[in-house]
Amino acid sequence: MYTYDYLLNFTKSIFMKMDCSEEDALAATRIFLAAELRGLPSHGMLRIKDYFQLWKSKRINTKPHIRIVHESPSTAVVDGDNAIGMVASVFSMNVAIEKAKKYGTGWVSTRNSNHFGMGAYYIMMALEHDMIGICMTNANPLVAPPYSTKPLLGTNPIAIAIPAEKQPPFIADFSTTAISRGKLVVAAKKGEKVAFGYVQDKYGNPSDDPEIIEKGGAMLPLGGDLAHGSHKGYCLGAIVDIFSAVFSGANFGPFVPPSVAFLPVLEEKVGKGTGHFFGAMRIDAFRQPDEFKAGMDEWIKTFRNAEHVKGQPGVMIPGDWERSKEAEISKSGINIIPSVVKELNDIAKELGVNFEIR
Amino acid sequence: MYTYDYLLNFTKSIFMKMDCSEEDALAATRIFLAAELRGLPSHGMLRIKDYFQLWKSKRINTKPHIRIVHESPSTAVVDGDNAIGMVASVFSMNVAIEKAKKYGTGWVSTRNSNHFGMGAYYIMMALEHDMIGICMTNANPLVAPPYSTKPLLGTNPIAIAIPAEKQPPFIADFSTTAISRGKLVVAAKKGEKVAFGYVQDKYGNPSDDPEIIEKGGAMLPLGGDLAHGSHKGYCLGAIVDIFSAVFSGANFGPFVPPSVAFLPVLEEKVGKGTGHFFGAMRIDAFRQPDEFKAGMDEWIKTFRNAEHVKGQPGVMIPGDWERSKEAEISKSGINIIPSVVKELNDIAKELGVNFEIR
Repeated sequence: MYTYDYLLNFTKSIFMKMDCSEEDALAATRIFLAAELRGLPSHGMLRIKDYFQLWKSKRINTKPHIRIVHESPSTAVVDGDNAIGMVASVFSMNVAIEKAKKYGTGWVSTRNSNHFGMGAYYIMMALEHDMIGICMTNANPLVAPPYSTKPLLGTNPIAIAIPAEKQPPFIADFSTTAISRGKLVVAAKKGEKVAFGYVQDKYGNPSDDPEIIEKGGAMLPLGGDLAHGSHKGYCLGAIVDIFSAVFSGANFGPFVPPSVAFLPVLEEKVGKGTGHFFGAMRIDAFRQPDEFKAGMDEWIKTFRNAEHVKGQPGVMIPGDWERSKEAEISKSGINIIPSVVKELNDIAKELGVNFEIR
Repeated sequence: MYTYDYLLNFTKSIFMKMDCSEEDALAATRIFLAAELRGLPSHGMLRIKDYFQLWKSKRINTKPHIRIVHESPSTAVVDGDNAIGMVASVFSMNVAIEKAKKYGTGWVSTRNSNHFGMGAYYIMMALEHDMIGICMTNANPLVAPPYSTKPLLGTNPIAIAIPAEKQPPFIADFSTTAISRGKLVVAAKKGEKVAFGYVQDKYGNPSDDPEIIEKGGAMLPLGGDLAHGSHKGYCLGAIVDIFSAVFSGANFGPFVPPSVAFLPVLEEKVGKGTGHFFGAMRIDAFRQPDEFKAGMDEWIKTFRNAEHVKGQPGVMIPGDWERSKEAEISKSGINIIPSVVKELNDIAKELGVNFEIR
């Protein structure tokens, strides 16, 4: 078990050893640790190794010149200069927030970036300014649209945060697939089959094999099958891809570069790096802040207090689960699974950083 | 079978007899007929009766004073003054487009409106200005979030149109539920059961009864069940509801007024009328228009030409199906089912408008 402060200092040191400025190292670190606190270890310390290996193979730039390459009053395209995704994303979200301050809303599409970790972090940046935060990202292709035998889209998440007054904020952050890749990995490790509606085989037939992706299969969009609306999940994933990549000039769909160094660089490129999309909207661009927040409080209370299924928790508000996790993990400390502790220890040794195995 | 022009003149006359100005009558008419052409009769002439009955019972205002009640450079809240939804929506989308012309993007949340018909119409208005169009609307409650036994959300659709150059535009318009209400009606008429994952009974148990809504049940969000991501469908429906209603001060969730006059006016109100959300983004606010459109052409070709499941059509691009329908129906004429022809004939008689039964 580690304290937040211990991991903050350790992770910051790791990134500084990878030539990041202190500011950039701290930005990336905070996002990895926010994922740990919110109960999403799949986006936490587990990912440090990926970035370390990308850096070793000179596939990311830890001294980036991130800049606006195109803009209008309420929009911009940011070139991330192949930075660590978190660094390009904090820059981009700040651009969106600054534009919103002046023009009511700000919208930024970012190219030439890399895996940005947990989207919830960027949208929560907007809350501090009494703004609604939005972000999306494309990701390496794992998901087959209806009728396709090939994965053409990533799990392409959408995240939106909306402030309230007395109630905690509404914070939704979800992939546009039926399930997360992580659930397949867990089922495979346990030797279990998965439900139908998650994956298909290489011919496009329904499958319950959690290892089918390694055998040429693909994940399915939200909806699972056409009869249950997988064409809508495909639309959502496509919209995320276009907003992130066609708006900015990043690689789209099947051309999104892998976020891990053990996969080869793709030969064919249609743009620069991975793409993201960020939005910020001032709440007072729509209503007086007190009215807006009172409205959100009322919305949240109405849903939370609705009649619910016997024996089940009540209706949840997006963000409830992660908030309760954060309360719990902030007290208990951050538990890292032994295989990740070992990875971190190896990286620490290689970079000459102190690390305690706890 | 009717020609487009015949129905245009007829429908316009009906709305003018309901005291609409010629301009408003024409706006509403064009949206009803666009739905017929695009193969969506559920949003076409079938709906005239609903508006006629709302008008007769003085529940809509056909002489509205629609106006901006709050704004920032890139945003506005529009009060629809209880207008026909199409009339308030065309006004609102035009405000979004004008703001985008000046500031790159324009975003409008609309309150005090009514059922707006086919969302695809408004987003296509943006295409004519080389803009991306976005719209959403809340709707009367039919959908239960996970763990809820009550319907708290409407089918809350999202629509997005993105222009291309040589390829036709990307036009997605989909509800945030597993299926449309219409599919339940069809199954019920045929005396068939439906697949699980569409509806639940009044206790929240899975159901295959297409008439379960009339028995206190509810529709399910996109995803169908929690194991297949229905919490994500709930997030989407909630976002549409909040953008449409909390942003503008319309009624949200369970308080959205019924769009049909045979249901009583709800006693409890938390805002004004039904809410919508509209967005317009200039493509040159992100990239040079020729670059942007070439990127969309490439995206569309990549997806359309992807390897596909044997014996199935290739990967579809959102909007393909409706476009092929429009090509077909523009040639053949518009077929209206006998029960709707009868309704229209009754309305025509009551209002003193000529109508031919064909």
